[in-house]
Formats: sequence, structure tokens, C-alpha cells
Amino acid sequence: MKYGIVIFPAKPLQDFVNSYRKRYDPHYTHIPPHITLKPGFDAENHQINDIVQKLHEVAQKTEPFDITITKFSSFKPVNNVIYLKIDPKDNLEYLHNEIDTKIPGHVSEYVYVPHITVGQQLTNDEHSDVFGSLQMLKVNMQDKVDRFHLLYQLENGSWTVYETFRLGKE
Amino acid sequence: MKYGIVIFPAKPLQDFVNSYRKRYDPHYTHIPPHITLKPGFDAENHQINDIVQKLHEVAQKTEPFDITITKFSSFKPVNNVIYLKIDPKDNLEYLHNEIDTKIPGHVSEYVYVPHITVGQQLTNDEHSDVFGSLQMLKVNMQDKVDRFHLLYQLENGSWTVYETFRLGKE
Repeated sequence: MKYGIVIFPAKPLQDFVNSYRKRYDPHYTHIPPHITLKPGFDAENHQINDIVQKLHEVAQKTEPFDITITKFSSFKPVNNVIYLKIDPKDNLEYLHNEIDTKIPGHVSEYVYVPHITVGQQLTNDEHSDVFGSLQMLKVNMQDKVDRFHLLYQLENGSWTVYETFRLGKE
Repeated sequence: MKYGIVIFPAKPLQDFVNSYRKRYDPHYTHIPPHITLKPGFDAENHQINDIVQKLHEVAQKTEPFDITITKFSSFKPVNNVIYLKIDPKDNLEYLHNEIDTKIPGHVSEYVYVPHITVGQQLTNDEHSDVFGSLQMLKVNMQDKVDRFHLLYQLENGSWTVYETFRLGKE
């Protein structure tokens, strides 16, 4: 089964992001706006209890922290993904690394950039148009991260939450 | 903010239900297949910590239990909702009642029928056609309920999980 680990920002930020995702993100209906901590990975049913236990340990020793979002950014030329950049990234990087090293055989090979996807699978022209105008927008949103979630993917591509992990509380 | 409390069945049951919801349920993209324990209710931000605490208490004193699904049923003539009936209903009724009485001002006025919605907002003709054929199907699925989730609704109608409550474990 395919699992993933994400943070859901608070409703005001999610509603803001969805106003763009509706038009620019084909995954709009598959999952609410989120910050990915660990992208989709395969795990067997018998491995999940162990993974859950390790995620509780990571959550327990991490205190809740604040994040700020001040601008739209893009992964182009790597891909045509437009996202909201999250600052500071150190707490999220820490969480990502802790989780990555605790789940054996699944260590990422890419540089982790904490973000909330706003648009993806855009053509070059769409990307240029959309990012051109979003880049001009001033954004100033704060949020507090106090939990993350383990999700699994259904056959239709949508995600269901399996369990919540509260930072510093477990 | 609008909150709800649901159980997500395991993936095989969710995939089975989604194969019908895709065609017959306009809420297909808003929430994964679920058993509603408490339908949408309004709560203020400052009330949520107290509600979460009470839900943890309910979860803690409830042991995980098994459910069986053996047939499609319908709420007609009350409404044109087609659903999978869940047996036995006593454990789910207990959970529903515990939650309902713990969240002040939100006691339900309807009879609780534990179910998984398969289709809704059908015209009379659609209902008659679809239910006519689903009624003939033999279903025999088992699942174990060991957790429930508190969700909140975004402006676009979709639901985000806020927290998970594990039965007997909290």
C-alpha cells in the first residue's frame, strides 16, 4: 500500500491555496492543501505498526513551531510546479530528515524544499502566465505546525488519513 | 468552523465503495468513503481543545470492534440515499451516543443508522434503477474499527482531518 506523510495547514491558508489549486492543480480533489514531509512510499501491512511507533517517537521529541509564507515560487526548470514557499525551513527540514531516516529503505535522494503546491502539470505557457502573475502578489500568512499525519492512497488516487501525530504531546 | 466525526474503513472496503460513489455520489471528491459518527456541527476555535479532550476520553474507554457489511440498503422514502448497511450496530451506536452527549448543544434528533453512503442526490428514477441492481448483489466484507477522526470542512466543501483517536489506546 502507498503511504505518505503530510502537514495540513490551518483552514484560512488551505482555503487560500485551494482558490488557486482549483484551476491549476489536477490533484485538487485528491488531497487537501498540504506540506509534504515524506512523498508516497510503499509499505506492507505488517510494517505499519512499526512505522507508526517511530513516527510517534519523532513527534514526541519535536516541539510545535511557527511558519511564515511570504511568496509564490516555482520548481522550474526541474518541473512546472508553482508553490508557496515556507520559512523558516529548519524545523521542517529537521522533521523531514528524522522521518526519512526512521523509515528504513526509504531515504530521499532529493533536496527537501518545504512547500505547499499551488499548481502542477502546467504546460510551459500556462506556467509562464500563471507564475508571472502570482509572483507579483504579496503574501503574508502565518501558521503554527503542531501535528502531522500518515495517509494512505486509494485506487482512485485520493488519500485517506490513517493517523495523526501531535508534536511534543505524544 | 464546521466539524464532523467519522470512521474510515480499510482500503479494500473504501475502494469497493468508491467504484460506486464515483458515479452516484456528488460528494465523491470531498471526503473518502466513511462511516459518519457525528454529522457536520459548528464549533468555535476556542471550543476545539475541550472537544478533542472529550473525544480522547471516549476513545480510551472503547475497545476496537469488528463490523460486517452484507447488503446495500436505502433511506428512501426519507431521502434517495443508497448505502452499505453495517452490522452489528451496537458498538457504533454506543460510540455515536457517547460522542453526541459529550459535545454540548449538539445532540442529534434523528435515529442513528450506521452506514457507508454509496450514492446520494439521486432522482427517483436513478434511485430506482441503481438500487434495483445493487440490491441483487451479494456483499460480504469484514472490517475492524480501531480509530475515528475529527475533521473540519474547507470552503470548497472538502474535509481535512484534524485529529485521530485510537480506540482503547489513548
